[in-house]
Amino acid sequence: MNNSKNQNESTIFPKGEKISSPNFMGTAWLSMLATDAGIFDCVIGNVTFEPGARNSWHSHPGGQILLVTSGIGYYQEKGNPIQLIQKGDVVMIKPDILHWHGASPDSQMTHIAISTRVGQGEAEWLEPVSDEEYNNSNLTD
Amino acid sequence: MNNSKNQNESTIFPKGEKISSPNFMGTAWLSMLATDAGIFDCVIGNVTFEPGARNSWHSHPGGQILLVTSGIGYYQEKGNPIQLIQKGDVVMIKPDILHWHGASPDSQMTHIAISTRVGQGEAEWLEPVSDEEYNNSNLTD
Repeated sequence: MNNSKNQNESTIFPKGEKISSPNFMGTAWLSMLATDAGIFDCVIGNVTFEPGARNSWHSHPGGQILLVTSGIGYYQEKGNPIQLIQKGDVVMIKPDILHWHGASPDSQMTHIAISTRVGQGEAEWLEPVSDEEYNNSNLTD
Repeated sequence: MNNSKNQNESTIFPKGEKISSPNFMGTAWLSMLATDAGIFDCVIGNVTFEPGARNSWHSHPGGQILLVTSGIGYYQEKGNPIQLIQKGDVVMIKPDILHWHGASPDSQMTHIAISTRVGQGEAEWLEPVSDEEYNNSNLTD
């Protein structure tokens, strides 16, 4: 069992460590919940984005499913408008779909990220989401 | 996006429908969050057990990961004592491990159940957890 004593009070799972990666802009936090890809062919992380934080454009060869557990965030697939995502939403990211996700400008957003079929290979990371792209929020829900 | 308007106020994801199955004892609820096994090789359900409710002894050929989001419940693998599980706990159920899970006698328990590598086949269901087994809670945490 994981120990729940170190969980963040405002969320269910630990907030974890601050992410230090060129693939993230702004402040975000990661706690890995499941890492045994050899047995389960999936890995699970709990990710918290502070307001304005987001990751870069990227894709997953085996897909990924996001379960939003708190806050209000953004999700965008290449060629489509930004979608508002919030607590209770489930986002299905099909293999090789170019996308990004993060918080909205005025709210943090926490999601569980379930990377599926990880045996298909590592995520492919591309360019950062520019301020122009991030602020182009002709939002759909 | 799933619609979050019908979510249960006490949990993040919808409580869903009451489970009617010979493999469950007591009152439990299920909302499927992800079902596209063909693309992701995993399915995800949100399961709520009312106090005393549990499923039967069973195993998963591809494994399963439980993310406990509220309440206090029980998890037991064959041959081992019952383990107390609660909000924030992660339970890794390896392929073919015989086990059961459910609420504790005095608390509901909600978990996200991520069935992994579902292409390996369906869960195998065995006999119910007897009252004697359920009440044999020389608990470890």
